[in-house]
Amino acid sequence: MPHTTSALQVPSAGAPFVATTIERRDLRDDDVLIDIAYAGICHSDIHTARDEWGPAHYPIVVGHEIAGTVAAVGSTVTRVKVGDRVGVGCLVDSCGECESCKDGQEMFCTKGAVGTYNAKGYDGEWTGGGYSQQVVVSERFTLRIPEGIGLDEAAPLLCAGITTYSPLKRWGAGPGRRVAVVGVGGLGHMAVKLAHAMGAEVTTISRSMDKAEDAEALGAVRHIATSDAAAMKDARRTFDLIVNTVSADLDMNDYLRLLRPNGVLCNVGLPPSELSVAPFNLIGGNKVLTGSNIGGIEQTQEMLDFCAEHGIGATVEVLDATETTAVDDAWNRVVKGDVRYRVVIDTSTITP
Amino acid sequence: MPHTTSALQVPSAGAPFVATTIERRDLRDDDVLIDIAYAGICHSDIHTARDEWGPAHYPIVVGHEIAGTVAAVGSTVTRVKVGDRVGVGCLVDSCGECESCKDGQEMFCTKGAVGTYNAKGYDGEWTGGGYSQQVVVSERFTLRIPEGIGLDEAAPLLCAGITTYSPLKRWGAGPGRRVAVVGVGGLGHMAVKLAHAMGAEVTTISRSMDKAEDAEALGAVRHIATSDAAAMKDARRTFDLIVNTVSADLDMNDYLRLLRPNGVLCNVGLPPSELSVAPFNLIGGNKVLTGSNIGGIEQTQEMLDFCAEHGIGATVEVLDATETTAVDDAWNRVVKGDVRYRVVIDTSTITP
Repeated sequence: MPHTTSALQVPSAGAPFVATTIERRDLRDDDVLIDIAYAGICHSDIHTARDEWGPAHYPIVVGHEIAGTVAAVGSTVTRVKVGDRVGVGCLVDSCGECESCKDGQEMFCTKGAVGTYNAKGYDGEWTGGGYSQQVVVSERFTLRIPEGIGLDEAAPLLCAGITTYSPLKRWGAGPGRRVAVVGVGGLGHMAVKLAHAMGAEVTTISRSMDKAEDAEALGAVRHIATSDAAAMKDARRTFDLIVNTVSADLDMNDYLRLLRPNGVLCNVGLPPSELSVAPFNLIGGNKVLTGSNIGGIEQTQEMLDFCAEHGIGATVEVLDATETTAVDDAWNRVVKGDVRYRVVIDTSTITP
Repeated sequence: MPHTTSALQVPSAGAPFVATTIERRDLRDDDVLIDIAYAGICHSDIHTARDEWGPAHYPIVVGHEIAGTVAAVGSTVTRVKVGDRVGVGCLVDSCGECESCKDGQEMFCTKGAVGTYNAKGYDGEWTGGGYSQQVVVSERFTLRIPEGIGLDEAAPLLCAGITTYSPLKRWGAGPGRRVAVVGVGGLGHMAVKLAHAMGAEVTTISRSMDKAEDAEALGAVRHIATSDAAAMKDARRTFDLIVNTVSADLDMNDYLRLLRPNGVLCNVGLPPSELSVAPFNLIGGNKVLTGSNIGGIEQTQEMLDFCAEHGIGATVEVLDATETTAVDDAWNRVVKGDVRYRVVIDTSTITP
């Protein structure tokens, strides 16, 4: 028989939160019951619950940046035990048998990976996310959070962390490489910390100089404002890799020009319009325009271990959710870009 | 004192050819005088001499697919000697000192590489290309053509060969990899031969099935017509690398869908309009949209050696240029796509 837990639910598109009680499934043999301590607020939560990415399934509980401790395990679980510090990211299931799954890229599962919320599981039940006090997840999708990272600063690593770690690794951020990060927000601040820890020389780029000081504190050696045409011109042909974390429409040509030959412009945000590039801006320097989508489970664990080794967590603001309007307000601040740099909900304060 | 040689000249944009006599510079210490045997006709020649890529410098002698033998060398030349079989491609000079030059990527020279024709050399003189009986080129830009490749079938390797070899190498065409080549023309037929020789499984894609048999003879295992919607749908998520050799505007989204996760769509043609892609088509599979531009001198030599080792040359039609209108006609056939697969001018027939 399923048991119940407290959660923050959005009843319909754009509606304010309601603190309520939801059901979680009984533990299967390979399941882990997690007492959630913190749930990060990701812009994707907002897009989903406001139907900005198509109609969602309501009522909905979002949240895919989950950190907590193991409360119970199914009979065959071996990778974690009660009391372990664990996390859950954007995925809770995949077929496990296709080429992508075997490759450790569960997000590209040919059967279709199952998202942590707003997804129909292989059992036909809709998934519900981390704005809640407990969640049940297969051990295959349960990550170990190493000692040395607070659970609050660990939560955002499960999405913002892996989404930026994965392209930095694929495209070789490291010593002797010049990396630019466009946008200094939830994703951007993680990209700066991670690229810096990998040994790359990091530059941040955003519209103004507002976050220049913060960016340096995060590990950047310089900040460029796109409003400064001379600085943008000076930066041409200087970067090996640009990670664009901005989801608004930007002119890709402006950033391709900043790349050295063979350089890579990688988008991790999902802007509303098509990306348009002048063919010569690719061919003229063998340049790469690409995108990157979270990361597989094995790489997510690698990222968490890397963060522990380098003393990295997200820069967070912990939110008391006793009043549900506090979470509504936090969402509005995220939309306005008024968060430095991630809000995490203290889920113990959810009060139905 | 400069000496003279016969050449096919275009007097003004779009004008027919004139067989005439032009001057080549006296040999400098590091120069090589080449008796040209064959000059390939590349679509770039036509774009340039018809002002389709901006105003050209007239009168102009085009041609950057040059194969011949060494007739004389300057006093410090060591890499080739009189009688050697040699070639010249798209470049005849670069600074030699910048990072790109030192990296063997002379085409991205920060001072600006000097093209084989329609370019102002570092000495202030305009360069003139291979539709001619002799050319003078620095030994640094002179390639050795190994025994075993006919000079006629070698000429197109200097542009069409390296332009397709370079991205196939960069993006890992080889055993176990599925490569699609879009367009079976001058560039495309080389891409098929090279990818097949590298051990990849090659599929060709073009509008119709007209070239299906030819494609198989070149080394493809199958051909897909884009007019066949069912075949295009079946081909989704099947390729590791797509080399697009078509210079017309194609919808990149149609081809990105054919890639497996982490797959690469590389354009070697230069279509007139911007390339437009849906962000999800990149992010949804960590896919890469890129371009590729000839290749450096070291890699061009590597390509020629690879071709000799694998018995590969371009599939050519040798053109008698005694009547200059034959070359005008050949250009019109190239524009119509009515050449299988490269026309090379027998430069000994140029008759002023």
